[in-house]
Amino acid sequence: MEFHYPNGKKFISKKAETERTSIPFVHNAKSHGKRGMTLEEDLNETNQYYLDRGKAVIHKKPTPVQIVNVDYPKRSAAVIKEAYFKQASTTDYNGVYKGFYVDFEAKETRNETSFPLKNFHPHQINHMDQVVTHQGLAFVIIRFSLTEEIFLLPFKQLKLYWDRMEQGGRKSITKDEIQSDGFALKLGLQPKIDYLKIVDHILPV
Amino acid sequence: MEFHYPNGKKFISKKAETERTSIPFVHNAKSHGKRGMTLEEDLNETNQYYLDRGKAVIHKKPTPVQIVNVDYPKRSAAVIKEAYFKQASTTDYNGVYKGFYVDFEAKETRNETSFPLKNFHPHQINHMDQVVTHQGLAFVIIRFSLTEEIFLLPFKQLKLYWDRMEQGGRKSITKDEIQSDGFALKLGLQPKIDYLKIVDHILPV
Repeated sequence: MEFHYPNGKKFISKKAETERTSIPFVHNAKSHGKRGMTLEEDLNETNQYYLDRGKAVIHKKPTPVQIVNVDYPKRSAAVIKEAYFKQASTTDYNGVYKGFYVDFEAKETRNETSFPLKNFHPHQINHMDQVVTHQGLAFVIIRFSLTEEIFLLPFKQLKLYWDRMEQGGRKSITKDEIQSDGFALKLGLQPKIDYLKIVDHILPV
Repeated sequence: MEFHYPNGKKFISKKAETERTSIPFVHNAKSHGKRGMTLEEDLNETNQYYLDRGKAVIHKKPTPVQIVNVDYPKRSAAVIKEAYFKQASTTDYNGVYKGFYVDFEAKETRNETSFPLKNFHPHQINHMDQVVTHQGLAFVIIRFSLTEEIFLLPFKQLKLYWDRMEQGGRKSITKDEIQSDGFALKLGLQPKIDYLKIVDHILPV
C-alpha cells in the first residue's frame, strides 16, 4: 500500500527505509573490522587491569562526533538524531604512569610484510611530536593481524620513517624495520597486552 | 490532510514532528547553558594558545556518546541516526605540561556564595584521586558565573570537602573556603584563563 503526500510525492515509510539502509553500529563495526575492535578491546581490558591494580591511569578517549541535531523529549533522555564521525585531532589513548604522561595510538594492518603509514594522520604525528617535546612518552602499538604479531614502536622511530616518506621515500615501514626498531609484545591473559613492561625500558630516566 | 497507516494509525510526518520537538544542538546548548559553553570555549581557546606557543599540550576530550544506530549511505559519510549522551568516566581535560601529566575538570555555578559538590560525579573524584596517586596533577576550575569569578582548586583540597560531605557534612564548598584554599584566575585576553601560571605554583618539584 502506498501513501502520497499532498504534493504527489510518494511516501516511503521511515521505518522501512531505516531497516533497508541502516545497520546497528556495533554489529557493523564487528563485521567490518573485527581485528580493529579486538585490538581496541584488548587494550581497554589491559588499561582496566592496570587501573584496578594501581599500575597506571590510562584511558581511551571517546570517539569524536560532530553533533548536528538533538531531540529533547520530555521525561526522557536526550536523543542525538543526527551526528557525524569526526577525524581525531590527537591519539586515542593517554594517561599517567609513574608520573609520566603517556600517549599512544593503536593500529593494525592485514599486510604481512609492512605497515602502511597512511594509517596515521599528519595531525596525529604532529600531536605525538608535541608530546615528546613536552617530555611526554609517545609511541604506537602496531598489530599485524594475520600473524597476530604486536609491536610497540616509540614515536622517535616512527618519526624517522614518516620523514623518509615525506622526503619521497617508501610509504610504509617494513616489518623488518619494526622488528629491529620496536619491541615485540606477546599476547597474554592478565593483562592482555602488557605494554607498560616495554614502557619501563623507554622511560627517560 | 491526514494520512493513515493500514492499521488505522494516524501518520505524523516525520519532518513536521522533528521541526516541532528538535532544536539544533549548538543553539540549544547556548540558550540552556551559555556560561557552560563560555567556560568551555575560554578553556579551549586557552589550550590552543598554549599549544600554538609550545607551552603545553592539553586538550578537551570528546563528549562521550553511546552510538546505537548508524546509516552508511553509498558515496557519502556515515550518519549517526541514534545516539545518547553518556556520563563521562574521567575528567574533561588532560595533557602534558613540562613533563607533568595534567588533568582537570571545569564547572560553573549560578550560586553566589557556594559551589555545590553535586557538580562532580563520584567517578570523577575517584579518577582525580588515582591521577594524584600516580603523581599527576589534578585540579578543578570553578566559575561563579554571576560574578564572573574563576578559581583553580587543587584536587587535594577538593577532596577534603568531598570527604566532609561523605561524612554527613555540607554538600557544597563555600566561596570563602574556595577563596582561601584555591587560586583566583583573572580573565585575560591572551590567553583567556591563564591557569598554567597557577599550576607552576603547585608543581610537585
